[in-house]
Amino acid sequence: MPTTPPAAPAPPHYTQLCTLRHEARTLGSISSLLNWDQETYMPHSAAAHRAEQSAMLSGIEHERSTSTRLGDLIAQCEADKALTGDKGGEGGREAANIAEMRRDYDLATKLPTDLVSELARVGSQAQEVWKEARKTSDFATFQPWLEKMFALTRRKAECLKAGKAGGELYDALLDEYEPGATGKEIEAVFTPLRPRLSGLVKEIVGGKGKRPNDAFLNVPFAPAKQHEFGTLVLKAMGFDFDAGRLDTTTHPFCSGMAPGDTRLTTRYRDEKFTDALYGTMHEGGHGLYEQGLPKAERFGQPLAEAISLGIHESQSRMWENFVGRSREFWEWALPHAQGLTRETGGAGGPLDTFSVDDAFKAVNLVQPSFIRVEADEATYNLHVMLRFGLERSLISGELPVKDLPGEWNKRFKDLLGIDVPDHRRGCMQDVHWSFGLIGYFPTYTMGNLYAAQMWETIHTEVPGLRDQMRRGEFAPLLAWLREKIHRHGRRYSATELCRMITGKPLTADPLMRHLEGKLRGVYGA
Amino acid sequence: MPTTPPAAPAPPHYTQLCTLRHEARTLGSISSLLNWDQETYMPHSAAAHRAEQSAMLSGIEHERSTSTRLGDLIAQCEADKALTGDKGGEGGREAANIAEMRRDYDLATKLPTDLVSELARVGSQAQEVWKEARKTSDFATFQPWLEKMFALTRRKAECLKAGKAGGELYDALLDEYEPGATGKEIEAVFTPLRPRLSGLVKEIVGGKGKRPNDAFLNVPFAPAKQHEFGTLVLKAMGFDFDAGRLDTTTHPFCSGMAPGDTRLTTRYRDEKFTDALYGTMHEGGHGLYEQGLPKAERFGQPLAEAISLGIHESQSRMWENFVGRSREFWEWALPHAQGLTRETGGAGGPLDTFSVDDAFKAVNLVQPSFIRVEADEATYNLHVMLRFGLERSLISGELPVKDLPGEWNKRFKDLLGIDVPDHRRGCMQDVHWSFGLIGYFPTYTMGNLYAAQMWETIHTEVPGLRDQMRRGEFAPLLAWLREKIHRHGRRYSATELCRMITGKPLTADPLMRHLEGKLRGVYGA
Repeated sequence: MPTTPPAAPAPPHYTQLCTLRHEARTLGSISSLLNWDQETYMPHSAAAHRAEQSAMLSGIEHERSTSTRLGDLIAQCEADKALTGDKGGEGGREAANIAEMRRDYDLATKLPTDLVSELARVGSQAQEVWKEARKTSDFATFQPWLEKMFALTRRKAECLKAGKAGGELYDALLDEYEPGATGKEIEAVFTPLRPRLSGLVKEIVGGKGKRPNDAFLNVPFAPAKQHEFGTLVLKAMGFDFDAGRLDTTTHPFCSGMAPGDTRLTTRYRDEKFTDALYGTMHEGGHGLYEQGLPKAERFGQPLAEAISLGIHESQSRMWENFVGRSREFWEWALPHAQGLTRETGGAGGPLDTFSVDDAFKAVNLVQPSFIRVEADEATYNLHVMLRFGLERSLISGELPVKDLPGEWNKRFKDLLGIDVPDHRRGCMQDVHWSFGLIGYFPTYTMGNLYAAQMWETIHTEVPGLRDQMRRGEFAPLLAWLREKIHRHGRRYSATELCRMITGKPLTADPLMRHLEGKLRGVYGA
Repeated sequence: MPTTPPAAPAPPHYTQLCTLRHEARTLGSISSLLNWDQETYMPHSAAAHRAEQSAMLSGIEHERSTSTRLGDLIAQCEADKALTGDKGGEGGREAANIAEMRRDYDLATKLPTDLVSELARVGSQAQEVWKEARKTSDFATFQPWLEKMFALTRRKAECLKAGKAGGELYDALLDEYEPGATGKEIEAVFTPLRPRLSGLVKEIVGGKGKRPNDAFLNVPFAPAKQHEFGTLVLKAMGFDFDAGRLDTTTHPFCSGMAPGDTRLTTRYRDEKFTDALYGTMHEGGHGLYEQGLPKAERFGQPLAEAISLGIHESQSRMWENFVGRSREFWEWALPHAQGLTRETGGAGGPLDTFSVDDAFKAVNLVQPSFIRVEADEATYNLHVMLRFGLERSLISGELPVKDLPGEWNKRFKDLLGIDVPDHRRGCMQDVHWSFGLIGYFPTYTMGNLYAAQMWETIHTEVPGLRDQMRRGEFAPLLAWLREKIHRHGRRYSATELCRMITGKPLTADPLMRHLEGKLRGVYGA
């Protein structure tokens, strides 16, 4: 049996490198707290000073993340064969760690400071213009700002691409969010997905399917009770409340800000309690990934950080859609929801007349609609693919910004079969592009694809999973995720990890099998 | 009529100085948020990393607050006659600002780094020892640690005193909390106060007084409703919730952390709702001072900071005791409290049978007891005077640490007429000394004395104050505090301010007049 040799004491240049990274990331963890506080509890009038605090801290962190000393130590470690000579075994960990530190350092030092501040400055103005102009679907006012943002982002991509041969400009942007991914590869996965998904939606919604009754979604559920329900579900999922919390904000998010500190947020409305539930499970999935990273031992090192947005999203979507929208989940969860909507001690609550089947069908309703963030599990990906195609053409210059609205509406009709009534519900709905988040959208659907492909493997490797889910036992699933994904940090790329876990590169098939199987059942199609 | 000449544009060295201070204090404001979060919402497991974050940020702040560049700029400003030549008029503001920056710089640079970390290290250990030993009143275990802390604090005092002629060592410690105050001066105020206060307590409690009925304090009041009550009172006091908040913690505090951001905390128990109320009003008084400082214009400058702990405490005690424990306050507040303790829509709540007189008398109950933080308005000051005398003797070396328990118990009996049963309720009850907070205690009673003396002036300068209080109108009172105290920041010393406002130096008379008048009424003595 091959054994791992005992680790030699780390050489001083490696220890120092890790210390410098630890310090820089510690400053970053403070910035995360500033952001979290701003979204949760900060008083209104503190906003101006908060901006100063954040700018100052980011400045100090950036200085430390780009220091010559840090660069020298990375180079010294790279040249140290004892650290980087062997990619296998325990030594491979440190080699991966150093390679990823190099990646971060290059990314941080490649952009000239004036471009970074220009992007921040113009992005913040463009976002304000967008916010106002969107209200009246006024694309003409927004257009010059969007043009500026795409021009600046092209400059950014050129800096990031410098020295790399081949590929398109868009790849350099993608790489920031999904390391190593290229437009071509994503296209190769999205292209077969598009017609199958679009066809499935038309088949069940427009064709022979029977629309499920969604009365289940409209039952009154007091926000405080929704919070109890969400907390109960998070605890069952294995979220550690000693090392995290759940609060309410306008826009739900997860901040894995520090070792022992992962904070989730959600929002409650009086109607449609499942929105908060799935928001909570989604952020909970992100949170479990953050809690599963080996931060206690390696905070500040890539080995304690998440691989990519796509892999992060695979964790959130898995809990939200593959667990939360399953029949098995509702077998366990429905009695809890019923209990929480009954008056204290009483019987006959408003959820009591619904069956597991009612719940399962209602939460899997498919409905082509205009707004991405409100879309169902199936049509969501069509929204994302639309944006991917458009932003790629906008970056290459093939599509001028002025032609965006027309092109958006045309492609939207093709994909979803409905006419976009105005830009507010069309190409002006998302905040992303206005502040330069370009190359980000495809990671949402990649998350769904990764989740689907992993989910098939999980079913073969976690025996009794369906029965466990019926009993609200998610520990075996979480243990699998911890072992196969979380504990590795950035040791492997997303592509490597996918192959290691599922034995195959990423394809559209598992997601389509999942959606076709489930939705044809729900729609009796 | 004398007019202020238009301010000349500030010279660059002054502007730069203010910028550097602004930056250092901005880092400090982030540290304050870290502390606040730790006490309110931080998950348990985040504690270790939080300590790292705090240490790192304090380190960066300390570097900036003690930089040679900052020192040079202060010297340059001091030498600039246009800035410091005239103490009167508008120019006087900048002169005061620079003098206070010098004071802070000297304080920050006078202590050698190794002593600072030694104090932090030993203090943190001593505090842990104290926490454990206190449980069993085990002074023997605590004694060597207390000896170390007094020895280190003496070294600290020697460093701070270096270059200053005259005075005792203790003054150097006092000066950190109450700038300019001396042991001799405080003694001169405390000495006549002690027998009068002690005599009054004996007169009403042990003698001819009639103990008021305190059933009012023991009425059930749900914590959520107590929170509503506290919020209502804070709003009436003028606390700006757009620029602040109220949360719950184990130990109530106020953090005026940043411009537009003042956070209060309190704690609710099921019994004795007035504890939370007075905790809230006390912290609210601190909070109003913080909100009244000109931070929007001058954050980072002494002119936007509080004068001293004594003046800060005068604000909290004024709202807690002079407003909150008055008959007029309860004329306004009682109906609100009664409403909040009634069932929704119903009548006949548990507070309905109590009159304003019942409330007023119950909240002014006097009772010699062992624990300072639970003491009433009158005996509280006896607890403080005891500590002042003892810590002064401990610093001078006149009293060895080993003799502390005996001396404590003897003096306690003299002052309060009761026998200390154990050290837990005696000389081991407070955390302060264990981590080097020596010279801090007297500021509590100075706060009461300042409040009393100002309160007499306020009555002559705010016409109709009593009637306003009966109607819950505190705006005229707050306007007076803003105008006379808050807006000045550190422009004047506590002693100067007291003379300016009241026309006299600080004496014990106003506090005694206040207590004698009120308590003899309450006790029918």
